[in-house]
Amino acid sequence: MLRVSILTIGDEILIGQIVNTNASWIAQKCVEVGASVIEHCVVGDSEEEILETLKRLYNLSDIILITGGLGPTRDDLTKPVLIKFFDDELIFSDEVLEWIKEYYSKRGINEVTERNKNLALIPKSCTPLKNLVGTAPGLLFEKENKAVFAMPGVPKEMQFLMKEYVIPYIQNKITSRKLPTHIFRVLQTCGIAESVLADKLSGLEEILNGVNVAFLPSYKGVRLRIEAKGEDVVKTELAIQKVVDFIKGKVGEYIFGEGEVSLAQVVGELLAERKETVAVAESCAGGLLGGEFTNNPGSSRYFLGGIIAYSNEIKERILGVEKQVLQKFGAVSQETATQMSENVRKLFKSTYGISITGIAGPEGGTTEKPVGTVWISLSAPDKTIAKRYQFGDDRQINRERSVGAALTMLYAYLKRLEI
Amino acid sequence: MLRVSILTIGDEILIGQIVNTNASWIAQKCVEVGASVIEHCVVGDSEEEILETLKRLYNLSDIILITGGLGPTRDDLTKPVLIKFFDDELIFSDEVLEWIKEYYSKRGINEVTERNKNLALIPKSCTPLKNLVGTAPGLLFEKENKAVFAMPGVPKEMQFLMKEYVIPYIQNKITSRKLPTHIFRVLQTCGIAESVLADKLSGLEEILNGVNVAFLPSYKGVRLRIEAKGEDVVKTELAIQKVVDFIKGKVGEYIFGEGEVSLAQVVGELLAERKETVAVAESCAGGLLGGEFTNNPGSSRYFLGGIIAYSNEIKERILGVEKQVLQKFGAVSQETATQMSENVRKLFKSTYGISITGIAGPEGGTTEKPVGTVWISLSAPDKTIAKRYQFGDDRQINRERSVGAALTMLYAYLKRLEI
Repeated sequence: MLRVSILTIGDEILIGQIVNTNASWIAQKCVEVGASVIEHCVVGDSEEEILETLKRLYNLSDIILITGGLGPTRDDLTKPVLIKFFDDELIFSDEVLEWIKEYYSKRGINEVTERNKNLALIPKSCTPLKNLVGTAPGLLFEKENKAVFAMPGVPKEMQFLMKEYVIPYIQNKITSRKLPTHIFRVLQTCGIAESVLADKLSGLEEILNGVNVAFLPSYKGVRLRIEAKGEDVVKTELAIQKVVDFIKGKVGEYIFGEGEVSLAQVVGELLAERKETVAVAESCAGGLLGGEFTNNPGSSRYFLGGIIAYSNEIKERILGVEKQVLQKFGAVSQETATQMSENVRKLFKSTYGISITGIAGPEGGTTEKPVGTVWISLSAPDKTIAKRYQFGDDRQINRERSVGAALTMLYAYLKRLEI
Repeated sequence: MLRVSILTIGDEILIGQIVNTNASWIAQKCVEVGASVIEHCVVGDSEEEILETLKRLYNLSDIILITGGLGPTRDDLTKPVLIKFFDDELIFSDEVLEWIKEYYSKRGINEVTERNKNLALIPKSCTPLKNLVGTAPGLLFEKENKAVFAMPGVPKEMQFLMKEYVIPYIQNKITSRKLPTHIFRVLQTCGIAESVLADKLSGLEEILNGVNVAFLPSYKGVRLRIEAKGEDVVKTELAIQKVVDFIKGKVGEYIFGEGEVSLAQVVGELLAERKETVAVAESCAGGLLGGEFTNNPGSSRYFLGGIIAYSNEIKERILGVEKQVLQKFGAVSQETATQMSENVRKLFKSTYGISITGIAGPEGGTTEKPVGTVWISLSAPDKTIAKRYQFGDDRQINRERSVGAALTMLYAYLKRLEI
């Protein structure tokens, strides 16, 4: 196994002002190519603590991936620590200065400030890595068959350096050293409960043959993580493939995608293939369903837009929900949800209309309709469906689950699934 | 200083399938009450690695906060490791079983499965902590003037246990031991660039007196982190307050809030106070601005809804943007943005209308209007404002920055700021 550890440097992360999305992004990319991530560690802007952690991780790891602390100010301690650790010295790199000048001149700036010139001061023994999306270069140290990469903490810059240099480097090491591997695959399901999934997958235990399968339920559906360690990449991949094939044979229709793909993306691509369109009518979700569709590049092929109808008056006047329906059944009801989805479909002339109306909380619950009650409706050319959901008492989670349930409803319709 | 380390256990986090939001949440809460967070560490579901890390952190810390690995399945290794570490044994706790029964019966379930009864097996030397929002109790170990808390990884359960037990415990330790403290405060600004902020704060250096101020620019505005260490909580708080007062005196109008508060929340409360309302017309943001407003409980007091107009046809037919305007100036133009904000305001009969129309990317850019070009407009009772922004080439970031800029525009209007 190629052992990779991830070291994140910065007070901002340590004190919780920023969530460490870099570490999970890096881990995912490393795992995808068969490396084994052994630890993430976050320490603050303290030379002593960075150095201690670096020493410790160096003993445990083949590769250390550092982010943060590479900027031009005196808070940025990664370079000084690496200098100490590798018993190295700073030199001025004309090559790096050229990169920085090039970066600025492409953006119409022809003067490099003194502070930014500091970025061209790099440890003598490292290989600088050209950063096309920022000014601080990545740094690569190789020693004793180990490697330490230092990257800026800005996600875009880190991601660029990872894709351009780190991932190919890791792939190369695994291949050339013929290292044992640890492979993960993730199948994403929707519209099926964990227990039903487990029932449908009976017989799975017998064919595993060293492969592990974990069931990971979340608000968005159950993910299946299939994982195996092995001496040989090809053999390990085949063993995993056998399990994946078994699962797909049993519950393939509930698997909407593999890996990082989102349900909105999959639903969107299905719509685009069918040259169909969708519009949304959102009450408690407040625009999040539209936001989820339009997260995906190219969503204008199938997403026309929608109405956010947060008040009853807007539901009536703009979405055309009948006053009597609102009065008799209330805003959170099958009847209102149905009129919302049917009317937004007519208004936008889309193939499908989806509506969400519910009580996200913390206020607004009643005995009959407690917080977490959500009606979701899908209006299609041949029929309209509406379903009541009972989520929990957390506002944010209720909103997210509503969006997930609405996407699942459309996915199930397109795939002719019973949910 | 009370030294706190955060240990997150679980393959899911380690391999990057889940972002470690727990660690940042925990860190923030600890820092707020004056503890010093020294490290976050993530390790996988491996007994050996958890034990090694626990030993190491135990030496460095006064308090270790563990999340994850507390469930009822054999993947859940936190209890076995703690048993080893504290040389302890498992006992069956009738008290904890009662808690679990109570939890289920409140949800209409009167039968506790054998698997879930395992949750009542706890280490003999620990104090179980009653979990009102889940079944696995928290565990507290106290030894040698140190404490180890183990909590479930489900964010809601962890947050409950933190608020109920851990934070009061930490506060009590800091007070009773008269420990030196490390206090942070964060002031959030919007509508002012980092360099302008620095200019306006000239003279700050002279009054710092041991207090540190960091400028933290992000897509959402510049945050100012004010921080000091001291022997005495009250004195340290006073030193920080002096700096905060200085900053507020110089740039108070740009400070929209302290700590975790969001701009949407602040803008919403301002609208509610003024008994005013807002509606949105979103193109490239696709619903995210509505989603941001409605994140906040009680947003129905001021947020009426909006139109997501993702296609030109919808902009024309439903939002009433004139065909000639779309043809002559394009969908991403001052003219279209202005008509969108004015028309959505009329349509929804709201006090304000805000519109966002831009090229989020990666497709759709031209030389004149490259990816990242966004027009934002605010229609108010007395005037309509529109402004062009040039963001970058990342779709998600462009959408988020658009939402931030739109909220900033309304905030600035309400506060009569020049931006």
